Amino acid sequence: MDKELVVIGTVRSSIKEVKSAPKMEDEDGAVRARIEMDPAYAEGLDGLEPGARLELFTWFHQSDRSVLKVHPRGIKERPLRGVFATRSPARPNPIGLHRVTLVAIEEPLTLVVEPLEAIDGTPIIDIKPKPKGR
Amino acid sequence: MDKELVVIGTVRSSIKEVKSAPKMEDEDGAVRARIEMDPAYAEGLDGLEPGARLELFTWFHQSDRSVLKVHPRGIKERPLRGVFATRSPARPNPIGLHRVTLVAIEEPLTLVVEPLEAIDGTPIIDIKPKPKGR
Repeated sequence: MDKELVVIGTVRSSIKEVKSAPKMEDEDGAVRARIEMDPAYAEGLDGLEPGARLELFTWFHQSDRSVLKVHPRGIKERPLRGVFATRSPARPNPIGLHRVTLVAIEEPLTLVVEPLEAIDGTPIIDIKPKPKGR
Repeated sequence: MDKELVVIGTVRSSIKEVKSAPKMEDEDGAVRARIEMDPAYAEGLDGLEPGARLELFTWFHQSDRSVLKVHPRGIKERPLRGVFATRSPARPNPIGLHRVTLVAIEEPLTLVVEPLEAIDGTPIIDIKPKPKGR
């Protein structure tokens, strides 16, 4: 089966560079951001309502996919650890997972979400409602 | 940037067909399953310990990627809804997200996890430690 991802939308954020982004969406510095959806996927948004808790899947397009060990949180004093034991953006498939609230849906085809730490231009690859109780 | 996913491992499960799989990992029928890792990614597992709560990312390789609206949970009486407002496996990028516990690590390069509803042969595309408190 085809394993080529399609880009369904793009993050528009005041955070422009990885070095100024927090590591997680629940850390200081995460912001209210917009997602410009590709019109080809508009129908897939049907039923989404402001206030919804969402799981947003991004593709960390600036990540090094060849890395298998990292210093946790980039702190050199911390021993190297396998990427699957960390949430480092550097990993074979650099998928980001972000819990956000859908604040508003604006024309044309823009989702306003918060808090988000992904940088401006980050591709969105999936959106799911967060299961209740988790 | 390249958006072709690599397969880092494969699910081995007693659940062989989608029709006999539950819809979510916290529903009856989810099982203890094994993940055979590709040796090329072995180093990435360093630091994972039994008991860890993980987020397992799968690729629903049997899904229809052209679908943008579904009847929730496949129930025809429920009105069609956009796939991004559901957790249907049919979606443009059929990424599955499963919360599991790492029960054991066995030689060679096998993770034993539970509970998992993904069927035998499902590709694994990422593994992340679950953030504390969610």
